[in-house]
Amino acid sequence: MHDVVSPRLGIATVCLSGTLDDKLAAVAEAGFDGVEIFENDLVVSPWSPKQIRDRCAELGLSIDLYQPFRDFEAVPPDVLAANLRRAEHKFDVMEQLGVDTMLVCSSVSADAVDDDDLAAEQLHLLASRAADRGLRIAYEALAWGRFVDTYDHSWRIVRRAAHPALGLCLDSFHVLSRGSDPAGIRVIPGEKLFFLQLADAPRLRMDVLQWSRHHRLFPGQGGFDLVRFVDHVLATGYAGPLSLEVFNDVFRQADPHHTAVDAMRSLLVLRERLAADGSPAVRERVRVPGLPPAPRMSGYTHVEVATSGAAEVAETLRAMGFRRHGDAWAQGRASILLPETDDATARIAAFGVDSADPAVAARRAARLLASTRADGAIEAPDGTAIAFGSSAAVEPGLLTDIDHVSLTAPFDDVDQTALFYRSVLGLEAEPAAEFAAPFGLVRSLSARDPAGRVRIAHSVATLRRGEWAPAVPDPQHIAFTTDDAIEAASVMRATGAPLLDIPANYYDDLDARLAPPHLARLRETSVLYDRDEHGELLHFYTHILGGRVFFEVVQRIGGYAGYGVNNSPVRMAAHRQLRVRAGHSNSASSP
Amino acid sequence: MHDVVSPRLGIATVCLSGTLDDKLAAVAEAGFDGVEIFENDLVVSPWSPKQIRDRCAELGLSIDLYQPFRDFEAVPPDVLAANLRRAEHKFDVMEQLGVDTMLVCSSVSADAVDDDDLAAEQLHLLASRAADRGLRIAYEALAWGRFVDTYDHSWRIVRRAAHPALGLCLDSFHVLSRGSDPAGIRVIPGEKLFFLQLADAPRLRMDVLQWSRHHRLFPGQGGFDLVRFVDHVLATGYAGPLSLEVFNDVFRQADPHHTAVDAMRSLLVLRERLAADGSPAVRERVRVPGLPPAPRMSGYTHVEVATSGAAEVAETLRAMGFRRHGDAWAQGRASILLPETDDATARIAAFGVDSADPAVAARRAARLLASTRADGAIEAPDGTAIAFGSSAAVEPGLLTDIDHVSLTAPFDDVDQTALFYRSVLGLEAEPAAEFAAPFGLVRSLSARDPAGRVRIAHSVATLRRGEWAPAVPDPQHIAFTTDDAIEAASVMRATGAPLLDIPANYYDDLDARLAPPHLARLRETSVLYDRDEHGELLHFYTHILGGRVFFEVVQRIGGYAGYGVNNSPVRMAAHRQLRVRAGHSNSASSP
Repeated sequence: MHDVVSPRLGIATVCLSGTLDDKLAAVAEAGFDGVEIFENDLVVSPWSPKQIRDRCAELGLSIDLYQPFRDFEAVPPDVLAANLRRAEHKFDVMEQLGVDTMLVCSSVSADAVDDDDLAAEQLHLLASRAADRGLRIAYEALAWGRFVDTYDHSWRIVRRAAHPALGLCLDSFHVLSRGSDPAGIRVIPGEKLFFLQLADAPRLRMDVLQWSRHHRLFPGQGGFDLVRFVDHVLATGYAGPLSLEVFNDVFRQADPHHTAVDAMRSLLVLRERLAADGSPAVRERVRVPGLPPAPRMSGYTHVEVATSGAAEVAETLRAMGFRRHGDAWAQGRASILLPETDDATARIAAFGVDSADPAVAARRAARLLASTRADGAIEAPDGTAIAFGSSAAVEPGLLTDIDHVSLTAPFDDVDQTALFYRSVLGLEAEPAAEFAAPFGLVRSLSARDPAGRVRIAHSVATLRRGEWAPAVPDPQHIAFTTDDAIEAASVMRATGAPLLDIPANYYDDLDARLAPPHLARLRETSVLYDRDEHGELLHFYTHILGGRVFFEVVQRIGGYAGYGVNNSPVRMAAHRQLRVRAGHSNSASSP
Repeated sequence: MHDVVSPRLGIATVCLSGTLDDKLAAVAEAGFDGVEIFENDLVVSPWSPKQIRDRCAELGLSIDLYQPFRDFEAVPPDVLAANLRRAEHKFDVMEQLGVDTMLVCSSVSADAVDDDDLAAEQLHLLASRAADRGLRIAYEALAWGRFVDTYDHSWRIVRRAAHPALGLCLDSFHVLSRGSDPAGIRVIPGEKLFFLQLADAPRLRMDVLQWSRHHRLFPGQGGFDLVRFVDHVLATGYAGPLSLEVFNDVFRQADPHHTAVDAMRSLLVLRERLAADGSPAVRERVRVPGLPPAPRMSGYTHVEVATSGAAEVAETLRAMGFRRHGDAWAQGRASILLPETDDATARIAAFGVDSADPAVAARRAARLLASTRADGAIEAPDGTAIAFGSSAAVEPGLLTDIDHVSLTAPFDDVDQTALFYRSVLGLEAEPAAEFAAPFGLVRSLSARDPAGRVRIAHSVATLRRGEWAPAVPDPQHIAFTTDDAIEAASVMRATGAPLLDIPANYYDDLDARLAPPHLARLRETSVLYDRDEHGELLHFYTHILGGRVFFEVVQRIGGYAGYGVNNSPVRMAAHRQLRVRAGHSNSASSP
């Protein structure tokens, strides 16, 4: 029986922000086996190729690819001569770097002609020159190549060239963005696949070059079926690395250590999915040792709000019908902890989930590169601590449970944060929403466990906020469930809970748009309303407490699946109005 | 002879960030005559429609349009009934607001059918209902309308409906993004044009809905020919306002007072261009009283670097061959002032241009809403002061003049800043460049006077910078011209100027790419090289002084038109390397 060899994991330096030294350190720290050296990173580096080679060796990184070499093939003789001269210069660099494979992208040059035989002949010549120096050429079809823009076309040329030092580079973005069927990859012999680059991307309707250069994501963060794609590639017998190549405007300016961990996690999750859904020959090769499936969850054990103003929050919870039990404020299955801290602004510091197997859940988290705290809780990229445990008793009341926890992701880390929660907790992504809030666009991402017992939402400004937009961190909130939102709002108002008043204009518009039942009661109690194809949502909010955290109460009727984001701008404007009235803003006048 | 009535100037509240009160205050302050009330702004406002009406009256603003009303026409009877009910609710709001025109967008609804007669019939019915209440309907073809997506199609339906309370709304984005020829507008009677919305946009290849919702710009900031478009509209006799409707992700989060001034300036510049290039009947109507053309400029009189470390900058200038004359350091026609200030980091605080008529130049600036300082200089949105004057004598040396000044624009204001410099100084925009720098994408905008004597560049991070990217403000610089960059670099190195060392890898790559003449000399002297279709550029840089400002020396050969941005990443990485070595960064290790 053969030993099972897991694929090596790599990443292109272009995925990360900083200078080459920053990037290599981050890549090594995240546990990658190798790197693709992106030429621009080398060109601007003060290190010689030999020094880069030594640094990689010191960090335990192989250099798997030198890239990109552009606009080579199918050109007139004088251009060919210049291109060969250019290639020889790059071969010099590669020899010093100690890398044996060069990526050649299909031409976009005005000098190129549409002639596959000429392209094959010239690539054969290039491969011979490379082979003379112990190097090889991986030819890749760019999705926007002038004449060669599909992987099957690049394969026909490579087959025709028939040189042992010439093979293919497949890049999932170039294949899947064009809508090509990756099933055809299976006809390519594995030994002719010299390299595999992986990138996911959101489904966008835009120029493919811009899409590729600005919006790629790591596997599992976008809309491509990378499991099927990689399955086909590995089924050919391809034995090279799984290497990430992601051009992303946000990653380009984000901490490379965060990005590299995110990148590695994306590959672990991809392998897990391949091990579950891939073809039989592939499954065993890609399995991630020590990564158990996510245990089933049945809800939240508690949520912790850290604030120096715990008394104000406690008073609000009391007015909402919570009762104190030791450290916790409880109602229904909901339990809120209010540790007194020095935090000038309140924040949702931690939560616990009720796990069928807390020890296994923690092991999964650690294997997926979650940091573990001294108290055993794991820490998400947004700084929230997550504990795995079991729920306490039920305290009867109008509120029955926690519906969801809504956090805010740092602009630079939102895709990483979303992937973290989904993968570590075993949640399914829900459709993303984007809406125009008073101070800029907001994207809302959410995910839930299959039973809908644990729901987590993240809001992020789609651009980093400006000088003008409110300087306070975006609010976070905890949403509780009820069976009767109007009744709950009435009772809570009577007991003095600081509930948010919603303007009359909202109800006039609601009447025009949706004509909901009980409109007068909604209006009286400042309960908001939404409807989707499954059912209805009634919900209301408190004021913001401790400068950042508020509570929401939701009543889901008939399988309403969303989070009422249509109403978020109303809530934001009403919260803003309270701040203006309280003198926290120098803006706004009254009529 | 008729009195000439200038068109009224308006803006939609959706163009601006904040709540309705913030927006109205900003619009009034910038001098607009009226507003379009965007429904979402009203819905989230605590003010009743009557209070909004009163507030607008108090601010001297008319309410010109209520918008948008969606998905009305060409639907089955039950949907029509619901839509009419919805419309009547909105008519109620309009009566309280005191606005007489409602925008109805062409339908994108799955309920709609492709039937122009039905659309006309139902719009006729809606117009009758509106007319009963003294209101009217402006029908607009969305570029992504389900069946009606061009202005000529919307006009056919309006003509067929033949109701006096039904007219067209034309939006330049919807017309020009589709590539429609606006010449056809001339067949529409002016009295059937109920409203005109103006937006510019960069030429992008993407889904038109996303393009419209996120990337619109004010006139003159994008790639549309708005002069021709508006000329056709005004030639019909259209007498309503020129009203801006711009959806832009950055403006949504930027200070609305800045945005409103930018918006007003864009309309003044549009009118100036129309008065020059429009049809004879239109010219006189749109002329901006008191706005003289920009006087000719013949170069910079001086540039002022404000810093608490003036001695270090002076030492560098001396080593570069400058000589002190009173307050100024001079060489060739270049003159640098170094006022000692408290600024912790240096900055380019001011510059002067040599104007053929300084008084007229200042009057033009003031009429285009530039702030004027106590000393008579005007202030650009990026905080730079600009004086108009005359040049002093010439001081012989290796450096002959100032080639360009390179500033940094605040992320939120870059389009405004670019329009400000172009319009106030009468500069022509040059092609924008975008490149991947070590810490994120950078966009470089530049403009020059027709003679190429005054060139101004602006760099901006295309996303606001992250926590990781260097916290210091992006460097600014002053570029001097020379007739021999290699000689100048040699001499300045010998006299101890702190010139930036460029890595060997750069020259290896340069050899491969461009094989420039004198490569060895370039390499020895750390002079960089670029080539375009007009000629060549040789240039070199100093270290960063005072934490922010550096100098560049450029030699333009044979009409090279650009700024060497291809080499900017090399410069940025080399500057970064110096910071790391100096211990200003905790990142980076050495091999």
